[in-house]
Amino acid sequence: MFFPRRGVKNRNMRNLKLTLSYDGADFSGWQVQPACTTIQGTLASAIGRITGEKVLPQASGRTDAGVHALAQVVTFVTESSVPTANFQKALNDLLPKSVRIVGVDDAAPDFHARHSAKAKTYRYRIYREAICPPFLVRYVWHYPYALDEAAMTASATGVVGEHDFTSFAAVDPERGREDDSLSNVRQIFFSTWERVEEELVYTVRGSGFLHHMVRNLVGTFILVGKGTLEPKDIAKIISEKNRAMAGPTAPASGLYLVNVEY
Amino acid sequence: MFFPRRGVKNRNMRNLKLTLSYDGADFSGWQVQPACTTIQGTLASAIGRITGEKVLPQASGRTDAGVHALAQVVTFVTESSVPTANFQKALNDLLPKSVRIVGVDDAAPDFHARHSAKAKTYRYRIYREAICPPFLVRYVWHYPYALDEAAMTASATGVVGEHDFTSFAAVDPERGREDDSLSNVRQIFFSTWERVEEELVYTVRGSGFLHHMVRNLVGTFILVGKGTLEPKDIAKIISEKNRAMAGPTAPASGLYLVNVEY
Repeated sequence: MFFPRRGVKNRNMRNLKLTLSYDGADFSGWQVQPACTTIQGTLASAIGRITGEKVLPQASGRTDAGVHALAQVVTFVTESSVPTANFQKALNDLLPKSVRIVGVDDAAPDFHARHSAKAKTYRYRIYREAICPPFLVRYVWHYPYALDEAAMTASATGVVGEHDFTSFAAVDPERGREDDSLSNVRQIFFSTWERVEEELVYTVRGSGFLHHMVRNLVGTFILVGKGTLEPKDIAKIISEKNRAMAGPTAPASGLYLVNVEY
Repeated sequence: MFFPRRGVKNRNMRNLKLTLSYDGADFSGWQVQPACTTIQGTLASAIGRITGEKVLPQASGRTDAGVHALAQVVTFVTESSVPTANFQKALNDLLPKSVRIVGVDDAAPDFHARHSAKAKTYRYRIYREAICPPFLVRYVWHYPYALDEAAMTASATGVVGEHDFTSFAAVDPERGREDDSLSNVRQIFFSTWERVEEELVYTVRGSGFLHHMVRNLVGTFILVGKGTLEPKDIAKIISEKNRAMAGPTAPASGLYLVNVEY
């Protein structure tokens, strides 16, 4: 399948910005892969049926298999004359119900879902009770074991600021980052754990994130909760720039891309 | 696969009562069927691995494909010496996460999940907004069209009392009822529609239910909401004892068995 990567080159071309919510449980992630059902491929196919064009829609970042989105942002360029207001219903009629277009807007010609992103917010849900309701299994990480939640809360701010997050990046030379930056330096503006009834919820807002970064942060905070690490160890792990220093990657099911800021 | 239907016949036999919560979306309903993944078959297999016995666990009623349960009640007889308190964890370790044992109790020898049931409560969730969040698709009926919700509320009490509910029973001579009664007369104690944020929720408590009865009631109340029927028509539909008089069967995804009373 060939997808030309086109920009807005003539006056018939429009740059459309979609906002998507999706349940990632049954997808092999965002990015098109051979013989896999991906959100990008599913969306490209639906856009193609409406516009008759082959497009490769670009997201703010690639979410992994099982990761969810409340408001992923996607852009694509089209010469279609379909009115912007009609795209939402037309796409939702064609897409599986696990992917919903929650907004469609005309964007400036140079706006790009990934390149133009200024900040993103992710959320991670951990279900703490002994038995996880069957209706939440796809949407949380069930972790019913003892955790010092106060220590986790105390450690969360340890990642705030501008740091090289190599210790929390997937060791994956092909795909070390969600964005196009060549550096592993990112700025974290907000990082907090809070109790929401039966759940322990992590919310992190940053300038950008490396591949697996949020899940690796969660896995590391869990080590703090278990007492394997202390809150002050977070700064040391960052400074080591070594993936082996941080904790394991938390499961995809608990992770949500909450929003993208431009 | 042969399942002996045994009662408690000697002093080594115990009658165990399980309380189950399940997400019915990925199951072909409760009842064992060849080449289908059913909750009864999945549970029988897990019990067999623990006890070494072939048992056919009996539920309070057979739920259809896609129907959920918050607290389904199941009984089975075993000669196993596994302590009652250990069954819950052992079963949950073997069962898929979409089925959870939320309680295990020793029951009297003559207690039977279906025969002993005195009342059941079902709930039906309708999502009313234009776009259904992907995370709710498996758990509601998405019905974003105009409805006179006040008329539906007014009509709900029309089914309360003791009636022959033939008009709301699946036309299915092999399986007309959830329970073992030969009559289509049931008593409805409580029947109400209420708005819960974006959802319109029907709750019904009765002495028992016929096959598809709750979904057929919901489909008929929808006709009231659309103005095709008036609230006063409910009594007339009941009195006709004719399935063709009532509305269509609402989808399984919105239906929950909430609890069973003994």
